[in-house]
Amino acid sequence: MTESQVKKIGVLTSGGDAPGMNAAIRAVVRTANYYQLDCFGIREGYSGLMEGNFTKMGPRSVNNIINQGGTILKSARSLEFKTKEGRQKAFEQCQKIGIEGLVCIGGDGTFTGAKIFYEEFGIKVIGIPGTIDNDIFGTDHTIGYDTALNTAMEAIDKIRDTATSHNRVFFVEVMGRDAGFIALNSGVATGSLDILIPEKKYSIENLFRNFRKAKKSGKSSNIVVVAEGEKLGSIYELAQQTKAEFPDFDIRVSVLGHTQRGGAPSCADRVLASRLGYGAVIGLMEGKTNVMAGIRANQLVYTPIGEAIKKHNEMNGDLIKIAEILAT
Amino acid sequence: MTESQVKKIGVLTSGGDAPGMNAAIRAVVRTANYYQLDCFGIREGYSGLMEGNFTKMGPRSVNNIINQGGTILKSARSLEFKTKEGRQKAFEQCQKIGIEGLVCIGGDGTFTGAKIFYEEFGIKVIGIPGTIDNDIFGTDHTIGYDTALNTAMEAIDKIRDTATSHNRVFFVEVMGRDAGFIALNSGVATGSLDILIPEKKYSIENLFRNFRKAKKSGKSSNIVVVAEGEKLGSIYELAQQTKAEFPDFDIRVSVLGHTQRGGAPSCADRVLASRLGYGAVIGLMEGKTNVMAGIRANQLVYTPIGEAIKKHNEMNGDLIKIAEILAT
Amino acid sequence: MTESQVKKIGVLTSGGDAPGMNAAIRAVVRTANYYQLDCFGIREGYSGLMEGNFTKMGPRSVNNIINQGGTILKSARSLEFKTKEGRQKAFEQCQKIGIEGLVCIGGDGTFTGAKIFYEEFGIKVIGIPGTIDNDIFGTDHTIGYDTALNTAMEAIDKIRDTATSHNRVFFVEVMGRDAGFIALNSGVATGSLDILIPEKKYSIENLFRNFRKAKKSGKSSNIVVVAEGEKLGSIYELAQQTKAEFPDFDIRVSVLGHTQRGGAPSCADRVLASRLGYGAVIGLMEGKTNVMAGIRANQLVYTPIGEAIKKHNEMNGDLIKIAEILAT
Amino acid sequence: MTESQVKKIGVLTSGGDAPGMNAAIRAVVRTANYYQLDCFGIREGYSGLMEGNFTKMGPRSVNNIINQGGTILKSARSLEFKTKEGRQKAFEQCQKIGIEGLVCIGGDGTFTGAKIFYEEFGIKVIGIPGTIDNDIFGTDHTIGYDTALNTAMEAIDKIRDTATSHNRVFFVEVMGRDAGFIALNSGVATGSLDILIPEKKYSIENLFRNFRKAKKSGKSSNIVVVAEGEKLGSIYELAQQTKAEFPDFDIRVSVLGHTQRGGAPSCADRVLASRLGYGAVIGLMEGKTNVMAGIRANQLVYTPIGEAIKKHNEMNGDLIKIAEILAT
Repeated sequence: MTESQVKKIGVLTSGGDAPGMNAAIRAVVRTANYYQLDCFGIREGYSGLMEGNFTKMGPRSVNNIINQGGTILKSARSLEFKTKEGRQKAFEQCQKIGIEGLVCIGGDGTFTGAKIFYEEFGIKVIGIPGTIDNDIFGTDHTIGYDTALNTAMEAIDKIRDTATSHNRVFFVEVMGRDAGFIALNSGVATGSLDILIPEKKYSIENLFRNFRKAKKSGKSSNIVVVAEGEKLGSIYELAQQTKAEFPDFDIRVSVLGHTQRGGAPSCADRVLASRLGYGAVIGLMEGKTNVMAGIRANQLVYTPIGEAIKKHNEMNGDLIKIAEILAT
Repeated sequence: MTESQVKKIGVLTSGGDAPGMNAAIRAVVRTANYYQLDCFGIREGYSGLMEGNFTKMGPRSVNNIINQGGTILKSARSLEFKTKEGRQKAFEQCQKIGIEGLVCIGGDGTFTGAKIFYEEFGIKVIGIPGTIDNDIFGTDHTIGYDTALNTAMEAIDKIRDTATSHNRVFFVEVMGRDAGFIALNSGVATGSLDILIPEKKYSIENLFRNFRKAKKSGKSSNIVVVAEGEKLGSIYELAQQTKAEFPDFDIRVSVLGHTQRGGAPSCADRVLASRLGYGAVIGLMEGKTNVMAGIRANQLVYTPIGEAIKKHNEMNGDLIKIAEILAT
Repeated sequence: MTESQVKKIGVLTSGGDAPGMNAAIRAVVRTANYYQLDCFGIREGYSGLMEGNFTKMGPRSVNNIINQGGTILKSARSLEFKTKEGRQKAFEQCQKIGIEGLVCIGGDGTFTGAKIFYEEFGIKVIGIPGTIDNDIFGTDHTIGYDTALNTAMEAIDKIRDTATSHNRVFFVEVMGRDAGFIALNSGVATGSLDILIPEKKYSIENLFRNFRKAKKSGKSSNIVVVAEGEKLGSIYELAQQTKAEFPDFDIRVSVLGHTQRGGAPSCADRVLASRLGYGAVIGLMEGKTNVMAGIRANQLVYTPIGEAIKKHNEMNGDLIKIAEILAT
Repeated sequence: MTESQVKKIGVLTSGGDAPGMNAAIRAVVRTANYYQLDCFGIREGYSGLMEGNFTKMGPRSVNNIINQGGTILKSARSLEFKTKEGRQKAFEQCQKIGIEGLVCIGGDGTFTGAKIFYEEFGIKVIGIPGTIDNDIFGTDHTIGYDTALNTAMEAIDKIRDTATSHNRVFFVEVMGRDAGFIALNSGVATGSLDILIPEKKYSIENLFRNFRKAKKSGKSSNIVVVAEGEKLGSIYELAQQTKAEFPDFDIRVSVLGHTQRGGAPSCADRVLASRLGYGAVIGLMEGKTNVMAGIRANQLVYTPIGEAIKKHNEMNGDLIKIAEILAT
């Protein structure tokens, strides 16, 4: 490798936490150390950047964190960083200790901040997609997504035990405000009768039709997975409408909520985070900036941050169809 | 063993399902087979008893169920069995195939039904305590309780990852309408700041005091576990009042709900269920009736069903105190 | 879709079992039912094919199996099917009930059998890659691989608790006779000091060098992950040689063994199995034969079976390097 | 509470690590803090005691460890502490900073050391039973035992998937050098055909008889759980002898090994550890010494250390019988 374009870098996590963020931090710190860069951990995202909440990190600072959920650097949302003054403060903090490049781990909001900060002040930035929602373009999967899928699936597996024992109908809400990836995949994986996601044009009549089909085919208990961002109505409204149509149904609602964000990361997430943490540092060393590191078709790729924010991974149309075919 | 007092028995599960019920069914069926009794599985609790929904079961009927949550016999609540006419139908069904004894797996409601049925019609009954709530007198633990504790704890562990990463306060509701066992134990096990249970005299001021103490001691994130049946107000009200008192807190609510009922039973629950299933059949063979099989201080004991329903296991006072001491 | 090229199909599992095989069987059966094909389950792989051990399967035959490890159709290795006579018998069984196409779930051995059977007798065959080893060309991942990774990783996480508490060195053997995928990925995911895989040219001196580096950097406990098929010597020999070089090391060996084959499949494996089960049936309906269904870059693709057997997925070179960089 | 008999205490973990040790350390530290005692963490057991490897610990030193396996204080076996000279050094270290009482978390060996140390030098000692083997008198369960049971059971559940799919016989070795508690309970919980433990008089003929019975009753796959300390022969010898007797059996051996020692502690273990950590500090404050804190029949009790070492919990005879009855 030719000489590195940066000597001192910082790493931060911002936005909602996701399992695997710690594995990414570890990879950034150790790769920097391996290539003899100085690496600073920045606490609480952009807030810490503005306040100079920096700690020098070496390989031992990240011992035994690869298997921990959450982020040891903590995360926070910052309104101040959305202002020019806030970013000016952040720039001065970087100047003070000579930080030339930043690795920003998070989602859309995190990347938007990084992009503007680079464009205004010239500090090099590379994004790493860390969010359970999988709604970032430029990578097949985001860090935390695979773990969240397994968490949601295991919860629904448990609910299924009760559903089956009591011949019940369960509406289960999973995370995914703008994207139905968690709902679609956990729904297929748990053999759900129906899956309601923002991406699918759908009416309550479709749902009722599926209930009728299930009844006819002898299915006595059913689970319907609903993405948080689904537009047909809240999960409680859906349950009520269903009860009105099928008065003999014994219906329950379960909202999986924040349990989906935590937990020890899966193997896939730890490996992905390790590859992206490495890739981000390598990218900075090569002089890259304003890009996001991702893995597509098993290759490390860099996507302009602007593109990563604007575009979206498309829902696999086949899988929507497969979900329907396998449901009954 | 002298000659058995019964030759044909039935087994049913009733009320809310609990992990380990299948292990209990298996133990009943295999113990009966071992002692050459005929054993019938009765589907959907007392409904199935009234409708004669019986299946002869042998050792192979219960293959590979010891590790499954829920109940293969299914469960249901029956209003009709609460009437004399309903129980008369049930008695006739028993007569038709010669069932002399019943093993009834469930909670309070299940036992009340069994007691009346025995007193009216003389069919011998033995109860097995199967409920995640642990609110049955006559046994140190009920079947399903240990599994539910682990399920609740694992969910709260995940929530803690997020709480810590974001310096948040979480109110987490766990099951336990009349008893705070799940809340108290899962709260201690997850290092919760406070635990709100029906058994504890308490005011919102106590809770606020604990928040203040935590702040002072440098704890930046906190979890409060709330039992379903807690009387201070709904978990959402508690969160609102707390927000009013501490406007800078970032507060979230999570209701664990039905996931706590399902899942593969823990080792302790499978062993408990195996011992109680065996104990129930042995009891019937010895002519016992109107009792519940339980394990106390590691010994199999039989408690009159009336007593099991009326009395309650007391919350361990020490543990409430320990919870407070260890919280900060 | 134009008219289906087959009306009656069979499905079998063969070779070592893998988590997700049941999800694949379920997808085959339900897709067949959806498109009004007759579908027969063939028990115990090619043995059952020769003996006509067939059962007609409908959508309810595969209820509640998507979350189960192992294979409800059972698996077996058959010497007889390797003979012409054996395959002749199998062909006659197919003729007897009119089976025109077979879905064969398994690995290399399974596919070789399918290929010869098709070439000799013209029964259409489509393979589905089901093996934890991930050593099949034509698909990014094989069914069971992701689950096995998580199982191995979770076991190593546990071992790490003990290693850290006692400042110990652990050699851990994971599965993978011909391919180091499980070792490399579980090794990266657990922060192992070194990973020994058949694909990497390596000497015991490299390993010793890494131990010395770790010592210098202050790492007091270390885990070395070894693939079953590693050629430097058995894991016990490696441990002994290491002890001879570093007499003060407290060294232990752990062989993870068969636990890696079982367990509830991960979400990724259930979704993969669902897509491939669907894809195999669609393939047969379109008249495809002698191919394997796989997913590459998130697309369903069909690869000639001969190619799937002969070629191999290459180990990601980057990941080997990343493993080294992140180890210390 | 009247005035405390001690003002400065130390806490150490020694012997094999067990899940829940960290929860016990946390409880000791926080209870000491609550009652305004000084508390020192002693690293690496008796070695650290001799070397004065002490750290003052406050409530924040034990943040977020309740859910971690292993021990943050590390553990070690010390030959030197078995000598008078070694213990003299330890005493001098205690004198230097004024430690009046020690909480010693571990098993038999740990307690023996503590007892002699107290008898020679008068430093008050209280033991906490921390070992997965459950072989300590004076407490219903030792810390770590419940977690180890679940770990062993989950591993055997996975093995069962493969056993069933291939009609195989598995011999599975679990930990327990002197006591068969893990084997007996995990064996019952997984529906094993037979369970070989040191406490049971047994011959290989008994085992063969059970295999024959299973065959006759139609069981096509079987698991035999063997305790490490079983005297009939090594697990490999048992497998060979079985193969000689039943040549058509497809037999595999699996040794669960060190995975059983690690992992996040179960809820029961965390609660037990919290109660015992509290109980040990309270005991020291009340002037108790040379005793072990335990929980029997849900009550905190103190047993003379000498008794805890000499006596043993008896294996539940009923459970051995139940295991046999339920096996087939």
